Amino acid sequence: MTTFHYDRTIRFNDTDGAGVVYFANLMSICHEAYEASLVAAGIDMPAYFRGHPVAVPITHSSIDFRRPLKCGDPLQIELQISILDESRFAIDYHLTRNSEEIATGRTEHVSIDSDSQTKVPFPLDLRLWLHFHDVDC
Amino acid sequence: MTTFHYDRTIRFNDTDGAGVVYFANLMSICHEAYEASLVAAGIDMPAYFRGHPVAVPITHSSIDFRRPLKCGDPLQIELQISILDESRFAIDYHLTRNSEEIATGRTEHVSIDSDSQTKVPFPLDLRLWLHFHDVDC
Amino acid sequence: MTTFHYDRTIRFNDTDGAGVVYFANLMSICHEAYEASLVAAGIDMPAYFRGHPVAVPITHSSIDFRRPLKCGDPLQIELQISILDESRFAIDYHLTRNSEEIATGRTEHVSIDSDSQTKVPFPLDLRLWLHFHDVDC
Amino acid sequence: MTTFHYDRTIRFNDTDGAGVVYFANLMSICHEAYEASLVAAGIDMPAYFRGHPVAVPITHSSIDFRRPLKCGDPLQIELQISILDESRFAIDYHLTRNSEEIATGRTEHVSIDSDSQTKVPFPLDLRLWLHFHDVDC
Repeated sequence: MTTFHYDRTIRFNDTDGAGVVYFANLMSICHEAYEASLVAAGIDMPAYFRGHPVAVPITHSSIDFRRPLKCGDPLQIELQISILDESRFAIDYHLTRNSEEIATGRTEHVSIDSDSQTKVPFPLDLRLWLHFHDVDC
Repeated sequence: MTTFHYDRTIRFNDTDGAGVVYFANLMSICHEAYEASLVAAGIDMPAYFRGHPVAVPITHSSIDFRRPLKCGDPLQIELQISILDESRFAIDYHLTRNSEEIATGRTEHVSIDSDSQTKVPFPLDLRLWLHFHDVDC
Repeated sequence: MTTFHYDRTIRFNDTDGAGVVYFANLMSICHEAYEASLVAAGIDMPAYFRGHPVAVPITHSSIDFRRPLKCGDPLQIELQISILDESRFAIDYHLTRNSEEIATGRTEHVSIDSDSQTKVPFPLDLRLWLHFHDVDC
Repeated sequence: MTTFHYDRTIRFNDTDGAGVVYFANLMSICHEAYEASLVAAGIDMPAYFRGHPVAVPITHSSIDFRRPLKCGDPLQIELQISILDESRFAIDYHLTRNSEEIATGRTEHVSIDSDSQTKVPFPLDLRLWLHFHDVDC
């Protein structure tokens, strides 16, 4: 598959009272990278995230922190998408600051019918996204 | 050890465009429960979080989501603290809504000298917190 | 009218890299007080905030800061609701820390049909809220 | 003075349960534009925002909303900086989406000695920023 890249400068509001990026905000910045990969594939964002008739919620997220980030720091995120089964995929995030490793993260997502809350195969827009990023499904 | 309990009602700003709690915000709500456990033990919060001369950053966080939460939902969080070694501890979070399981999470923390960024034994306020919550260290 | 009171302890995630509450987060904490006043009146929060068929967006917000707030600080917010016209109301927020003035804020809200985006009279749940807080409308 | 421009795409985490940008987040996005204007002038961000020995807190902020923003919307912000007196300046924000007016905002800032909390003339980095953006001071 192709690897997707996302660049972001750390902002004041990302940091907390210790002067470094607040841990949960770094997960949120990983989600920004995922959104950027959707935009790159031409996905209609409001329709995708509204979650009807199919929603794609996150079922798991984790992150391991190596080094702190400060306001103004340049951050690079590399995404790797993988298929877990016909309704589930994962994204691995590799975060660096000028080639110095900052953190690694992962989110897992499942495609569900929003009424019945049961698993369904990936909807069309998600298949377009996977295809755009050269992920077989 | 004693288990610490934290209650919280879900607010509008916790939710996202899909009408449910945004995944990273639920990690942040777990951190609120950790803060409440510090306050309960009488820890001076600004001093503790300023991180000088000892900082206690999060090195790992993870969360598994079972069910979505909506604005107005009552959330109960149960914390369990465990010692990993003389500089590291973990907190496990069990999140329920009226005894229905919502999510389980975990954070791992390390005690470091803020100048040298090397591991140090737990500082006094952290030992008081562990003692208050009946965790042997 | 009755004045509504809301108490809140400042949390780590409310603060920024300067160690004090981030300005926009204090507006968000005012919104929490507004939500608490809706809950007190028994309003169905997900239905109210979903915004169909009537939405009640904020058209104006302002805040004046007198003193900074730190992590762990106790904050008291006093709300005063006033009717501007048949589709618009305002909330004035008076923020104190143990009777020391911290800030004053204001939000203005308009009741609109979510399809046509035109002004409509207050919907039933909003009238119940106004009635609960002894505001004539 | 020169006008400073900042472009930003609306992200999922900017929106709330009503599917549009949460009001306080739009103030935060205005602050991002202010930060970008500091970066453009070469200001050392961590040093500037740490607030020692001089801090530059926000004393007032306000925003008027004309139209809602959704996830994926392109937003353009135009900044105008003005001097209020030797310790205070204001920034006016004009927010548009493809030349359609979205909102107008304003922040007011004061330069203070962080120990005595009394007003002081603008520090050097702030004067460099004003000079960079062709604001007389």
